Amino acid sequence: MYPVSDPESFHAIIPAGGAGTRLWPLSRAAKPKFLLDLTGSGRSLIQQTWDRLEPLIGAGNIRVVAGPAHAAAISAQLPELVHLIVEPSPRDSMPAIGLASALIEREFPGAIVGSFAADHVIADTAQFAADLTQAVHVARSGKVCTIGIRPTEASTAFGYIEAGDPLFIDGAPAAVEVTRFVEKPDKETAARYFANGTFAWNAGMFVASAEVLLGHLAELRPALYDGLTAIAHAWDTGDRQRCLDEHWPLLERVAIDHAIAEPVADSGGVAMVPGLFDWSDLGDFAALSALSPTSDGAILLDADGLVIAPEGKAVSVLGISGVVVIDTGDALLVTTKEHAQRVKELPAAWKDRGRGDLV
Amino acid sequence: MYPVSDPESFHAIIPAGGAGTRLWPLSRAAKPKFLLDLTGSGRSLIQQTWDRLEPLIGAGNIRVVAGPAHAAAISAQLPELVHLIVEPSPRDSMPAIGLASALIEREFPGAIVGSFAADHVIADTAQFAADLTQAVHVARSGKVCTIGIRPTEASTAFGYIEAGDPLFIDGAPAAVEVTRFVEKPDKETAARYFANGTFAWNAGMFVASAEVLLGHLAELRPALYDGLTAIAHAWDTGDRQRCLDEHWPLLERVAIDHAIAEPVADSGGVAMVPGLFDWSDLGDFAALSALSPTSDGAILLDADGLVIAPEGKAVSVLGISGVVVIDTGDALLVTTKEHAQRVKELPAAWKDRGRGDLV
Repeated sequence: MYPVSDPESFHAIIPAGGAGTRLWPLSRAAKPKFLLDLTGSGRSLIQQTWDRLEPLIGAGNIRVVAGPAHAAAISAQLPELVHLIVEPSPRDSMPAIGLASALIEREFPGAIVGSFAADHVIADTAQFAADLTQAVHVARSGKVCTIGIRPTEASTAFGYIEAGDPLFIDGAPAAVEVTRFVEKPDKETAARYFANGTFAWNAGMFVASAEVLLGHLAELRPALYDGLTAIAHAWDTGDRQRCLDEHWPLLERVAIDHAIAEPVADSGGVAMVPGLFDWSDLGDFAALSALSPTSDGAILLDADGLVIAPEGKAVSVLGISGVVVIDTGDALLVTTKEHAQRVKELPAAWKDRGRGDLV
Repeated sequence: MYPVSDPESFHAIIPAGGAGTRLWPLSRAAKPKFLLDLTGSGRSLIQQTWDRLEPLIGAGNIRVVAGPAHAAAISAQLPELVHLIVEPSPRDSMPAIGLASALIEREFPGAIVGSFAADHVIADTAQFAADLTQAVHVARSGKVCTIGIRPTEASTAFGYIEAGDPLFIDGAPAAVEVTRFVEKPDKETAARYFANGTFAWNAGMFVASAEVLLGHLAELRPALYDGLTAIAHAWDTGDRQRCLDEHWPLLERVAIDHAIAEPVADSGGVAMVPGLFDWSDLGDFAALSALSPTSDGAILLDADGLVIAPEGKAVSVLGISGVVVIDTGDALLVTTKEHAQRVKELPAAWKDRGRGDLV
């Protein structure tokens, strides 16, 4: 099943920017999370993202936006990738998605665009395609559509989307209004959202017509819109680099959630299609632990958790529940799942110690 | 200060038999605890034991009893060692100490012998010498004398010695009777002993005249005495090996505590001199943790404990109190101090998995 009757009109944007410091020392600055095969499938997370999208829309309709440090690795992992947009410096998701949208809109007026994280895991690609099809139908109606993730626990690691009334859009029977986006909540609020049942997790999947998206940007963030438009205008000319050098460093560093999703939702312009597929952002070792089997080689006595170690290394864990042991040869992390969110403090601590080589 | 006016008359016996499986994977069958430099002093534990005794009595008065697998390593670590007694198979401490005592008594009638573990740590050698001097004076009076360790906690890892009345022995003002030896107690009993104040830890340090020791053995374990006497008789003849082959495998496997100390204490024949030196048996990683500084290289956030890893390896521990991390390159152990006693289960578990190379 294709998400649109005319696949030519749907374009995917994959911002590949996150460092994944909460998965250190597995993920490093030079080899971030999206380049890693964390699920043991034989494919990295960005390759799995590609594998979900390419059969639906073709390689020519996929754009990856990444930094110069990762361009070569991405090209090597995705040999069929045609459109790699190299952003000079990280400025969060709005400039990346905005530039890609502007380039698509110039070449394919009226196109629908969708943004998909490079490092999330979705096993059920058929269900993903079905839900995306509904989102594209919603986008055609002029709304910005997000695909919301069904919460499986009262997580404080994600932003939430509050669902409103049904929208009765043709081809998108599951679409509902979005009342509001909320930031990562505290524990009590998360528990309330989870119990409530009308809240979904925000996984950053946004589908809209490029024209609508850029229209919101022009209204809400005019300076950002002008900068991106100038760059897109010069993109296929000899002036691209000069224009990037001039405008990119001045672009506001902002996420699409803040720049567009939140304010547009407040004025009734955002819809949600519930994603019925299993999903994980593999955001920390607690999340990875749920998907990744413990190293076959390990012995755990009165212990359970996640053990990743080099082939042949004899790892023994005794008496620690929810343990996380990550041995990469040069570095060793020992913690427990409950401290998984704090792992991101470690690369910085090693850098302070003069071990920038580990970051 | 020398422990005896005539150093010739005092001989030290160092049974070097323990495997130290509770310190696995630092200690291995081929390289047991006593061969390791666990305190970072630059000297292994058996070398430190040597360093305490040799200045007091000379190399010629020290006998090490060990298995064939460790003879070469011991000789290499102790180049001045003259008397290495190789026992064909491990039969616990009584046969080892008994054979050495019989050999000493044949060559030096009337000698005093003392047994000292190969793998304990005593930093204050002057105090050790002073306490040993008192023990030798007690031994000259015909008693078996033990040097008891002052308990620093209600440990369940040691046997206890109950002290009785003062003995008023010349040259040994601190000597008291021993009422009884008790096996490793349970937690409640250990707490009672610790609170009571009249109990010491049994560190296996026994000092007695060889004649007295062998007399007790002849009475209490006549078959063992006969076997050891036959071997000692043949020791300096061409018949040594045949005699070892014939008798050693049949010797009872028993500790000196059970064979002599306990029954002789019951009949009033054992005395104790309190050891006033700091002491550790480094029996497990909790004990090692108290003496060994955490690896300089490690970062511990909301964590404390013992980290040992190869030079240059970046070890991070997050949120685990009392952690024990031992990375030997081929093996990695992760546990906490409270589970330190159970570490000995791991070498057996790896052997069951076909990884006898790790044991």
